[in-house]
Amino acid sequence: MVKIVVDAMGGDNAPEEIVKGALLALRERENFSVLFTGDEARIRAELAKTPHDASRVEVRHCTEEITNDDVPTHAIRSKRDSSLVVGMTLLKEDPEAAAFVSAGSTGAVLTGGIMLIGRIKGVLRPALCPGIPNVRGSRTLLCDCGANAECKPQYLEQFAIMASAYGKAAFHMEHPRVGLLTNGTEEHKGDTLHQEAHQLLKANPNIEFAGNIEGRDIMFGDVDVAVADGFSGNIALKSVEGCGKTVSAILKREFKKNLASKLAYLCARKQIKGLADMLDYAKLGGSVFLGLKKVVVKSHGSSKANAICPSVIQALDAYNNRLVETIEEMLTSGALEKQDA
Amino acid sequence: MVKIVVDAMGGDNAPEEIVKGALLALRERENFSVLFTGDEARIRAELAKTPHDASRVEVRHCTEEITNDDVPTHAIRSKRDSSLVVGMTLLKEDPEAAAFVSAGSTGAVLTGGIMLIGRIKGVLRPALCPGIPNVRGSRTLLCDCGANAECKPQYLEQFAIMASAYGKAAFHMEHPRVGLLTNGTEEHKGDTLHQEAHQLLKANPNIEFAGNIEGRDIMFGDVDVAVADGFSGNIALKSVEGCGKTVSAILKREFKKNLASKLAYLCARKQIKGLADMLDYAKLGGSVFLGLKKVVVKSHGSSKANAICPSVIQALDAYNNRLVETIEEMLTSGALEKQDA
Repeated sequence: MVKIVVDAMGGDNAPEEIVKGALLALRERENFSVLFTGDEARIRAELAKTPHDASRVEVRHCTEEITNDDVPTHAIRSKRDSSLVVGMTLLKEDPEAAAFVSAGSTGAVLTGGIMLIGRIKGVLRPALCPGIPNVRGSRTLLCDCGANAECKPQYLEQFAIMASAYGKAAFHMEHPRVGLLTNGTEEHKGDTLHQEAHQLLKANPNIEFAGNIEGRDIMFGDVDVAVADGFSGNIALKSVEGCGKTVSAILKREFKKNLASKLAYLCARKQIKGLADMLDYAKLGGSVFLGLKKVVVKSHGSSKANAICPSVIQALDAYNNRLVETIEEMLTSGALEKQDA
Repeated sequence: MVKIVVDAMGGDNAPEEIVKGALLALRERENFSVLFTGDEARIRAELAKTPHDASRVEVRHCTEEITNDDVPTHAIRSKRDSSLVVGMTLLKEDPEAAAFVSAGSTGAVLTGGIMLIGRIKGVLRPALCPGIPNVRGSRTLLCDCGANAECKPQYLEQFAIMASAYGKAAFHMEHPRVGLLTNGTEEHKGDTLHQEAHQLLKANPNIEFAGNIEGRDIMFGDVDVAVADGFSGNIALKSVEGCGKTVSAILKREFKKNLASKLAYLCARKQIKGLADMLDYAKLGGSVFLGLKKVVVKSHGSSKANAICPSVIQALDAYNNRLVETIEEMLTSGALEKQDA
């Protein structure tokens, strides 16, 4: 049976919400099992709270944890018995292990992914790719959003290919439209990096390049993939997140002001919920770390069960839909074969 | 009398909405007059529609317009009788002219500002600085948001100083808290440019440096000034704009679905308006182009009268509150004296 390895100790709400979320996923989908890595006693205590099919759950005890305070490279090397290192090693070595999900330190997940699982042949730099809710009611894949603060044009070209492969494999996008995130829509916009990347994207026959896009097009535009260097991609992702949080804080404040506004909320709660649902990141799962030999999903550090559940399902779907193989095929079928870092 | 020069031909809704907006500003504030540059017949036709004090309005006829299709440097040099070139030249030469407001091509406003009005002595690169509505109900000054796609660490340091001066002069911020926009809050985050800028900001005694901030802190944080290179600042600004537009599109859709949702809107319209007001960019005016010898305000290209009016008032206030002098004082009082580009 296909197995999803879940880092039970990663994130602000571990292990309680992580375990709870993974059990939710088991209830939603059949034909897979979960293997938790982490403090067995704490994981078992949480498992005991929720009825579940014990034959679909395994626990691998680990004595260590990697935190946000650890230096990633050092932690991956020295904390060999951490939930993250044990989980990723399992993913690499166990042929039944399909994917790894963690809400732990982003830096450690990225470093561990590259050191322990390894890159697909030909991939210059793996990249983080979350789905951002958009005005069309679907998602825009933003790649890279933080794995690579400093990029070369060739990296951006590969981000476009990997995210397109992800769109095809996981979201049935037949010809994902790709935009290059810069400071204007004209072809000459941006710094040298983005100008050169624009030319590479334009010349690449394997992607559907729609030209440069601006930040507003991530949510309010018509592309399926927004390609970014990891620095500005991260800024775009977090800016949107801050705007969403601000909207929800203001709505809460407005509707809690007095009795009249509380009544108004009762009238309009269905519509407000419609908005909240559309903007809900958690529902869309985590960021997939594209370019590794196996599927790795990084969930937000503040994830609760309702965010872990879709992350586990997302990991399962990505595996079942042959994400890694699709990236391999797209990378080797095209012009990228001749390029090198 | 203090005179605000208004480019009547710039933007998608010129000259109608530009003239209308400037007349609104005349009604809201006393002790200033407006000088329109542009097609006199069209401006007069619009003036005739709204009762106003004719002694506070002048028109300077021009035969040319600069559009978004023009190459800025070439347009500034060749279209000498355009509303933008004539307006900026007036601003420079007329001692009564206090500020210039345009909703025209950003590139042309930036190029014209530098070529025709000139930089304050010691300013390495002027920068665009809009105010972004934040969760506290005030605004975060984002500088630079697009004038300089490629930056050096010293530019970022000056952006911090100029935006702090703007906060002091225009918004009564006594000690504006400054954050450096990067991909993480830790000191070592970002590329070399941002790491070096971090050290300069930390060492500068004239600003209140709060460390690195992430995109989410622009709207959902506690800084008054967010310093950014013009490339990622532009992406942050537009990302937030796209999120706001998406929220308002979804709300419209949700509340227009059927009769029940239309009734729900009637109940909650006060709260929805509360949200719309807080997120309303137009109300906050345009982006000030900091670092020039005179006040220049760039209003959004899609500005209607309700956005032009606050831009004119913002320009007047910036002049009356000695924006240019405050920048000069802050630049020369500190460590920056010794630096050079």
